[in-house]
Amino acid sequence: MPTIIVEGPPISIDKKRELVEKISKIISEIYGIKYITIIIKENPPENIGINGELLIDRKRSN
Amino acid sequence: MPTIIVEGPPISIDKKRELVEKISKIISEIYGIKYITIIIKENPPENIGINGELLIDRKRSN
Amino acid sequence: MPTIIVEGPPISIDKKRELVEKISKIISEIYGIKYITIIIKENPPENIGINGELLIDRKRSN
Amino acid sequence: MPTIIVEGPPISIDKKRELVEKISKIISEIYGIKYITIIIKENPPENIGINGELLIDRKRSN
Amino acid sequence: MPTIIVEGPPISIDKKRELVEKISKIISEIYGIKYITIIIKENPPENIGINGELLIDRKRSN
Amino acid sequence: MPTIIVEGPPISIDKKRELVEKISKIISEIYGIKYITIIIKENPPENIGINGELLIDRKRSN
Repeated sequence: MPTIIVEGPPISIDKKRELVEKISKIISEIYGIKYITIIIKENPPENIGINGELLIDRKRSN
Repeated sequence: MPTIIVEGPPISIDKKRELVEKISKIISEIYGIKYITIIIKENPPENIGINGELLIDRKRSN
Repeated sequence: MPTIIVEGPPISIDKKRELVEKISKIISEIYGIKYITIIIKENPPENIGINGELLIDRKRSN
Repeated sequence: MPTIIVEGPPISIDKKRELVEKISKIISEIYGIKYITIIIKENPPENIGINGELLIDRKRSN
Repeated sequence: MPTIIVEGPPISIDKKRELVEKISKIISEIYGIKYITIIIKENPPENIGINGELLIDRKRSN
Repeated sequence: MPTIIVEGPPISIDKKRELVEKISKIISEIYGIKYITIIIKENPPENIGINGELLIDRKRSN
């Protein structure tokens, strides 16, 4: 606790490392708690909808 | 915002498209907000338990 | 199953009723499953951040 | 980790105590991990929809 | 309802079976409700951060 | 998208402001995406269990 869930598209392992390091530092300072869990959820673009359209379709039309 | 998370079994891309289009329309009307994110979570039947039994075992017994 | 979690600002009970009725119908048709759970999460504007700013601060500046 | 989120109606503090004690024990044995976080979410019946109907309306009709 | 989401590392199907059976029993007794959904989320160790470090890096250093 | 859910104990509005500002900046840099939603969930200590014990009971014993 705290536990942070990050819902986004897939990212590289280096970005995951950076995310976990930086976010944990900030959360730890704000809450004054050391034990922090971050779960990175990688969602394929065909499973994300923005304003009624799948991300995969939005990309296609660009 | 709003953000909608749909936890279900796997579905086809056409159904995802239909889901995102229809749900976004309704949510947008109800909340009066245009920016809507939908995340479709596809859970394998061996990861879902209903009333103490994995979905994969329930199917097998039918 | 499926279970739908809707994260948004507070809404009236009539809108909740409408949301649950309409979303359940669509989800039921798409998944071909009858048992549907919807959980409406009402988040106070001071607990929602969009693009680095709390919703409560964005409103104030308008 | 593991982190368990329990979405249900409101319950008494004694039931919360029992829930956390018993669920942690089982999860700890299954995963072989000692650090377990459980978050109990108490949802008002007007925020839960089952099969297209708010829980508060279903109760009323009984 | 209730719906339980378990966020952890990958586990075997036998452990999933055990988890769903045992957790459902306890939740059913505590809430006095029979219809229980459990969703097991299996997160790869490179997607979990504990105290600023990816689980995959913690393992490596051991 | 991305959407970040922060599950923790209650915090002050100033801390929420700081959290949303700092986390959004980092997430935006890592994902290269500008539209970021953060939802801060404030859980009462009697709803959080760590290692089989409610947070409210752990505090009491200190």
